[in-house]
Amino acid sequence: MSHFQFTSQAQTAFQSRFAEQFTVAQAVREQHGRDESREAPVLPDAVLFAHSEQDVIDALRLADEYRVPVVPWSAGSSLEGQLIPVHGGISLDVSGLNRVLDVQPGSFQATVQAGVTYPELNRQLRREGLFFPVDPGAEASLGGMASTNASGTAAVRYGTTRDNVLALRAVLPGGEVVNLGSRARKTAAGYDLRGLFIGAEGTLGVITELTVRLYPLPGHVAALRASFRSIEEGAACAALLMGAALQPERLELIDAGEIAAVNEYLGRDYTVAPTLWMEFAAATEEALAGTLALAGELCGESGGTGLEAAYTEAERAALWEARHKAYYAITAQHPGHAFLTTDICVPLQQLPGMVAYTTALCREADVDASLVGHVGDGNFHMTFHAAPDDAGRWQTIHGIYDRMVTRALECGGTCTGEHGVGLHKRGHLARQHGDSLQLMRRVKAAFDPHGIMNPGKIF
Amino acid sequence: MSHFQFTSQAQTAFQSRFAEQFTVAQAVREQHGRDESREAPVLPDAVLFAHSEQDVIDALRLADEYRVPVVPWSAGSSLEGQLIPVHGGISLDVSGLNRVLDVQPGSFQATVQAGVTYPELNRQLRREGLFFPVDPGAEASLGGMASTNASGTAAVRYGTTRDNVLALRAVLPGGEVVNLGSRARKTAAGYDLRGLFIGAEGTLGVITELTVRLYPLPGHVAALRASFRSIEEGAACAALLMGAALQPERLELIDAGEIAAVNEYLGRDYTVAPTLWMEFAAATEEALAGTLALAGELCGESGGTGLEAAYTEAERAALWEARHKAYYAITAQHPGHAFLTTDICVPLQQLPGMVAYTTALCREADVDASLVGHVGDGNFHMTFHAAPDDAGRWQTIHGIYDRMVTRALECGGTCTGEHGVGLHKRGHLARQHGDSLQLMRRVKAAFDPHGIMNPGKIF
Repeated sequence: MSHFQFTSQAQTAFQSRFAEQFTVAQAVREQHGRDESREAPVLPDAVLFAHSEQDVIDALRLADEYRVPVVPWSAGSSLEGQLIPVHGGISLDVSGLNRVLDVQPGSFQATVQAGVTYPELNRQLRREGLFFPVDPGAEASLGGMASTNASGTAAVRYGTTRDNVLALRAVLPGGEVVNLGSRARKTAAGYDLRGLFIGAEGTLGVITELTVRLYPLPGHVAALRASFRSIEEGAACAALLMGAALQPERLELIDAGEIAAVNEYLGRDYTVAPTLWMEFAAATEEALAGTLALAGELCGESGGTGLEAAYTEAERAALWEARHKAYYAITAQHPGHAFLTTDICVPLQQLPGMVAYTTALCREADVDASLVGHVGDGNFHMTFHAAPDDAGRWQTIHGIYDRMVTRALECGGTCTGEHGVGLHKRGHLARQHGDSLQLMRRVKAAFDPHGIMNPGKIF
Repeated sequence: MSHFQFTSQAQTAFQSRFAEQFTVAQAVREQHGRDESREAPVLPDAVLFAHSEQDVIDALRLADEYRVPVVPWSAGSSLEGQLIPVHGGISLDVSGLNRVLDVQPGSFQATVQAGVTYPELNRQLRREGLFFPVDPGAEASLGGMASTNASGTAAVRYGTTRDNVLALRAVLPGGEVVNLGSRARKTAAGYDLRGLFIGAEGTLGVITELTVRLYPLPGHVAALRASFRSIEEGAACAALLMGAALQPERLELIDAGEIAAVNEYLGRDYTVAPTLWMEFAAATEEALAGTLALAGELCGESGGTGLEAAYTEAERAALWEARHKAYYAITAQHPGHAFLTTDICVPLQQLPGMVAYTTALCREADVDASLVGHVGDGNFHMTFHAAPDDAGRWQTIHGIYDRMVTRALECGGTCTGEHGVGLHKRGHLARQHGDSLQLMRRVKAAFDPHGIMNPGKIF
């Protein structure tokens, strides 16, 4: 049970400040009681829609005064239960902070409010010939992406959200506003509290603005597909491609089951086999041709067949749409089932072994699971599924998951490459960072002495 | 006055544990009482030479118990007084932790002890066709580079030390060992304490090991030089080159005075004029030729003349040696003078204006100063000099410096791009991050409750 209480005094204080921006309506609370994880929903006591930074300031001032838990909420697309208000309190919806405040093309940066989604930012940037490269899928907001250090298919080339946020503004419990980082490309001015906020899953404060890095849209781009006899073979080819320093823009591994699911879900006709989806860019057509030729050669040497290139923007968009919707395609195949997705990430050299180990575990236990992965980063996702009440099957699945985490940690990897800890991975985090967990708790207390920010997450 | 005391009990405890590794010899203390800044030396009470991580653990256990300040020391090349033991105590020399522990070429990473220098690491990596790209100059150690988030000429392409340290091991006050970050390329597992340690200037604990990112040595490389009529014109050209997304490996601006100094110091014959030194790399000779042609064109359009390319490794090494020794060349020209180097970094678009503003301030005050800069990052250094006792001149210099910082902060930049805060920039840091300084202090207390780690620095 939570030690927090949402008292009538607290409710009155919020209502008198926020009027109709503050609601206890059941339907709104239900909408804010879940995310895209399979964690059980929990309703917040109330939902507060912030329209301005001042709203966030006043909300955190009142929340700290009345000891009310606050869960920052925006696109609702987190995957590990980060948004579920397990201790009740207020779901603070900042999706209304949705303005692109400033674009400085010559400095390759834009300043946006936290509720701006990355697809919306990219729509607004197109006329400048620039883009923001981190693409976790869904219609994720930049504040949320920063809070989970999200990445996605382009991280292999451009890094994660942490690598692409120069500066941020955040409101701390009590209502204090801090400006962290610098709009300069690099800074050595004191502790990197910017980096600390990124990946903190809303447990330190609420991000209201971010200055992000932009990149020129690459000149000449092509996507490439190759099929493999086994998923292990595809993973080994990915490691080989990375070793050749071809600098792919994207490098994704998808198993045969996912391909079949995507074909059905989106009406495509991709060859049903373990597949690498790649994307390469270059400044000139000739340079691109050279890169594609070398990539094709390496695929062939690794057992890849059916090599196909896609040059038009429409073809490429279709391919990456398929990749981004792979999860939904799998879930559509198993109506009524619950789903669990892992997020192991290991040093590149360890990837083929990790994939082989995982598929062997599933085969031995006769567990149906599908694999997709940002394999250029050593990161892949297994999606498990079973009827929600099939306790035996879930026990088997969790056993496999635990052994995957153990193996990933043994070879220097992490239990989460990009989804974060949330509710679900607290046990895994304790195994991975047991030696510094107490330190993380002390850091949390330095920001949030009353523990009102997204309690129950990470730790 | 310091509230710390190095008692005879403390000394006895250290001596009985460390025997001849622990010394109070004057000459050794003098060697550890300064760095490359112009701050006045202060002698530590003692110097302790660590040969192993266990030595560091025991040192921090005793130091915490006896409340003895500890200043981690390795290459001695910090620039802002970071190494000066202003509160006395022990200078903990970890330069003996100098082993490369593990190189994993297939994962593009190496694990090293903190005292390994980056040139030494690169010597050992050569046979693998890999390199570690961060090059701050001097014979900096990787532990020290992490502690100041050092960067240098290649940061424009490969980022700073923070971007290139995947994981680290550190010893906390009291002797606890923590493993921070992950050897995977990306992680979302809890707070980024790795990133927090990087740039913390030894105020949180002592780094003993680092896992760093490696890159393939680029295939085809050329350096390019161009002269300009004014330093402002060179800065504008740098911004133009960056805007064209040519992805230079290096992009350095050097003023005429520095060129003259380098010519004299190293016996070179570079054209004495404001100059851009650039380096470009590509996978093929043709791609490189294309890049060089475009770069040359842009230089010409910006008023650049005397374009010269250098293709051999010897020529390029000579060029970057000249750049790395520019500071020593200037100091050699003014025997008996003291020197002060700024480290402003601004968003790229603001760079030409910032350079023009700075040179105008110097001209108006009739102050002789020289400019070199990592201008692709928006980062440049002015080196001021005067007789140490010329109070009037130093007042003028500090006035200019303050106005530079004010202007840099106004346009979203930072008072330090790569040198850190140390003793010298504490006032500047307070202006830049006044709103989060208290938060930084609370974070410090979470790691170091007795305040023994490098007291007097940053804050």
